[in-house]
Amino acid sequence: MGSTPAWKETAQQRRKQQFESIPEDWRLTSIPDDFQDSRNVIEQSGILTPTELEITSTVGARKILRRYEEGAWTVEEVVTAFCKRAALAQQLIKCCTEMMFESAIAQARDLDRWYADTGTFVGPLHGIPLSLKDTHQVAGVDTTVGWVGMIGKPAAQDELTVQQYRALGAIVYVKTNVPQSLMMSDSYNHVWGQSVNALRRELISGGSSGGEGALVGARGSMLGIGTDIGGSIRIPAALQGLYGLCPSVGRVPYRESARDQKYIVRPVAGPMANSLSSIELFMQAYTSMEPWNVDPTIYPVPWREEIDEQVQSKEKLRIGYIVDDGAVMPHPPIQRTVRDVVQKLKDCGHEVVEWDASSHKDAYYDLWVKAVLADGGKRFEDLCKMVDQPLIQGMLVGTSETWLDNAQRMELADRIWEYKREYLAKWRESGIDALIMPVTPWAGMRPRVWVKSQQYCGYTAMWNLLDYSVLTMPAGSVDKALDDPDQDAEWKAYAQHTRGYTDEFNYNMYKELWDAEIVQGLPVNIQIVTGRFGEEKAVAVAKMLEKLGIV
Amino acid sequence: MGSTPAWKETAQQRRKQQFESIPEDWRLTSIPDDFQDSRNVIEQSGILTPTELEITSTVGARKILRRYEEGAWTVEEVVTAFCKRAALAQQLIKCCTEMMFESAIAQARDLDRWYADTGTFVGPLHGIPLSLKDTHQVAGVDTTVGWVGMIGKPAAQDELTVQQYRALGAIVYVKTNVPQSLMMSDSYNHVWGQSVNALRRELISGGSSGGEGALVGARGSMLGIGTDIGGSIRIPAALQGLYGLCPSVGRVPYRESARDQKYIVRPVAGPMANSLSSIELFMQAYTSMEPWNVDPTIYPVPWREEIDEQVQSKEKLRIGYIVDDGAVMPHPPIQRTVRDVVQKLKDCGHEVVEWDASSHKDAYYDLWVKAVLADGGKRFEDLCKMVDQPLIQGMLVGTSETWLDNAQRMELADRIWEYKREYLAKWRESGIDALIMPVTPWAGMRPRVWVKSQQYCGYTAMWNLLDYSVLTMPAGSVDKALDDPDQDAEWKAYAQHTRGYTDEFNYNMYKELWDAEIVQGLPVNIQIVTGRFGEEKAVAVAKMLEKLGIV
Repeated sequence: MGSTPAWKETAQQRRKQQFESIPEDWRLTSIPDDFQDSRNVIEQSGILTPTELEITSTVGARKILRRYEEGAWTVEEVVTAFCKRAALAQQLIKCCTEMMFESAIAQARDLDRWYADTGTFVGPLHGIPLSLKDTHQVAGVDTTVGWVGMIGKPAAQDELTVQQYRALGAIVYVKTNVPQSLMMSDSYNHVWGQSVNALRRELISGGSSGGEGALVGARGSMLGIGTDIGGSIRIPAALQGLYGLCPSVGRVPYRESARDQKYIVRPVAGPMANSLSSIELFMQAYTSMEPWNVDPTIYPVPWREEIDEQVQSKEKLRIGYIVDDGAVMPHPPIQRTVRDVVQKLKDCGHEVVEWDASSHKDAYYDLWVKAVLADGGKRFEDLCKMVDQPLIQGMLVGTSETWLDNAQRMELADRIWEYKREYLAKWRESGIDALIMPVTPWAGMRPRVWVKSQQYCGYTAMWNLLDYSVLTMPAGSVDKALDDPDQDAEWKAYAQHTRGYTDEFNYNMYKELWDAEIVQGLPVNIQIVTGRFGEEKAVAVAKMLEKLGIV
Repeated sequence: MGSTPAWKETAQQRRKQQFESIPEDWRLTSIPDDFQDSRNVIEQSGILTPTELEITSTVGARKILRRYEEGAWTVEEVVTAFCKRAALAQQLIKCCTEMMFESAIAQARDLDRWYADTGTFVGPLHGIPLSLKDTHQVAGVDTTVGWVGMIGKPAAQDELTVQQYRALGAIVYVKTNVPQSLMMSDSYNHVWGQSVNALRRELISGGSSGGEGALVGARGSMLGIGTDIGGSIRIPAALQGLYGLCPSVGRVPYRESARDQKYIVRPVAGPMANSLSSIELFMQAYTSMEPWNVDPTIYPVPWREEIDEQVQSKEKLRIGYIVDDGAVMPHPPIQRTVRDVVQKLKDCGHEVVEWDASSHKDAYYDLWVKAVLADGGKRFEDLCKMVDQPLIQGMLVGTSETWLDNAQRMELADRIWEYKREYLAKWRESGIDALIMPVTPWAGMRPRVWVKSQQYCGYTAMWNLLDYSVLTMPAGSVDKALDDPDQDAEWKAYAQHTRGYTDEFNYNMYKELWDAEIVQGLPVNIQIVTGRFGEEKAVAVAKMLEKLGIV
């Protein structure tokens, strides 16, 4: 009989430490076997005080700031409430990695003293608890990103990104779970285990910012930072019914964005939150510090408030839409939600035009996939070797076959540039203000299924390829009455699908999920795509949709 | 006896064609053996009419536009004058590659008709003749960049950059000479031969935009576009006493800037001109078209006019300066010019602070050089192989020894990013508005010497490494009375230099040039460095220096 490999023991030990770092009176004494929505368990646990429940149910960071001004809450109360709720969420849905509760509460006290002494905020995010995807390097804690070999190697100092967030007044209190390679939408790894959906425990929380999505979904955070190279902010945001902004490169800081020699398609960081106004506040706050003077990866583009005014005052917006990009047919509730939004826009007098997505499938497989696998997976190999840890099978990682040499990289980079140029011309000629479309072609997914499905991420990855800004927002939900696959004539007729394995897998998965009654009631998000440096416009269009009651 | 290799014959044939494409009455019947300043030969040739002499002596594109408005000149007259003068310059100093005189004059006539019909300009550069470094792909002509194997492969269409220039109203009439690899400051190659200095035929015109510098220097162009990855705009501009702007990546279009997978340090394009106002006009005109909507490599940063006002109205600017960066000691006139400017700034009440350049030498050799040679020179090898053409010896090209694999590239990219971050912090803390410093440590150089000198390009390449904007401008000249190496006690004392081969070579070279009386009277330029996206500030500081009579 083989003994447990050393790397497994190291990981178990680390998880044990993590649990033990949770104060005893924040621990759940029992977890119902059959719970589905983590929020119910948290709220009924009796561990959060009424004020803590009120604080963590608050929608929007602006409201928190107002409460500080009114003297209703202290930063210590707010940060403690979120630390507690994050600890509870972790016990239920495995969304956290490093917990920094003690230091966060100490910093909160410092801010309260500062405010008492000066009557001013230290910055535009004064005392806002901020959760971070595990990839961020925070002084004194590990950056394992799920690799056992990285346990016990704490960062000597905060990375520049984290320094900037702290300078804004934000309080970093927790880091969040990810998939082993970051290159999938199901967040599990050998160190921290399987993160699951905050609203439906039997489903995934998404990825790669899956722990972040789950934590915000469980209201263990109100504002967090994820990263995205193919959908990693937007997919978890969508699966938990949140707002998530995937900006163009160079508007939100991210260490990895700087490594332009590694990436042909560059990853970005962006905010995830349970309100649109928190997303907007974050962007306004961050750009207001003129971060381009501090961070060489940020471009000198201020938050252009006039764009919001332009959008709100425009009588007739021109909105493109995609229901189905022709590669993988979205599940019925996804299609219906996009169609609903489009119809309501039309009813409000806006112009809607179907967008030609016929180039997307090829662009995804021939450009994006090749670009993200160009490194041949060497780095993951090295990370595995550190402790003889296996690679999780089925993840999207490079191999010796996908490795590109310099000439091939240049050729690929040229083709991507040419595609970007053509797409931009098409975008401009179309005159659209925004494009509305699905986030994923699936309404939910069980853990460990993603790796079997040969997932198509073209709905989201297209915009990383093009470096366009995208906001995702909740726009509907799976409806027991409207989305039954057996009652949907069109969907039933599609049973003879001809688009290949991934599409077939996706089609059959819906029936299985529906019959298990596991997706009904879940949120359905849309993407609002607004072109390069279109962050202000995306937020403005989302605001307009909310104002008109369209979503 | 060996016969002439085929590639040589192909090159000779192409040069012959080039000469024959010059209209007969634009040909110089005799070229004085001992001429030094090409402008004198051109102006005394009798080939240019008095109006053509007036047109080509006009300083500043704005003045040309005014003349169009006044009806004093037609576009046809202006374009013809510059075509003629470019053809004359080519015969003297080998600055041109592809000549597109006929089509340019035809386009000029179209613009004249348009203006007659509508009374409006087609764009903010209406009828401004624009010369382009040979790297630009222009429909119908080759992009040899000096490679014999690229002869006879005309571009099917204008690259996007050229399309944008035409949309502004500019008239592309000629492309200009370069060094074989683009990676040196001496512009010669097997196709087009040796470009020499417009003002002193026995010296080089610089590089890699050396033909461009020579053409503008000879007044065969008033505005041209060069490219720069280590000094390739600034060095030729300096050697001909011109203005040249090396912007941050993403402000001026350049196909190669998009290939971020190839370059760790990315090359940029920028304007070269014989007046500051032409540089400013070009930048205003280009950004006014909101090119970020058309070109995916351009960032949405408009020309921020307010920066000029801020600089001009500031009572006391804080200006850093470098006389000698400690790696290679600049020739006496270079040092003196920087010191003069600094002294005059002080006299005008501005604050000057010596800048600590102690990190530059290491950053140059350990970061910039490694980054630009990371591709191992593979592309040049392939270009040579096309026609069995040899590589010019001594050029800065990669080899199998400088090739970096992916892991090494990432590590280097990380170190560069860290250096950028530290430098930006230092820059910001210093509070300087600009940094004034030499362009090259040498006042002039003979052809074919650069490759022997193991040239140090740290004075210019530093700013490509950091992606800072730099403007170079004329600020003085080599003075027979002041710059004599035998009369300069400090310089003489430095005879025991200890900085290594390149510095020693540079030191001895000055004495040789001086004794041959070949550098006296030549212009000396400075660099004005203004940080990332500091283009407006660089132009504003230069304007201030001119207004105060400091330069």
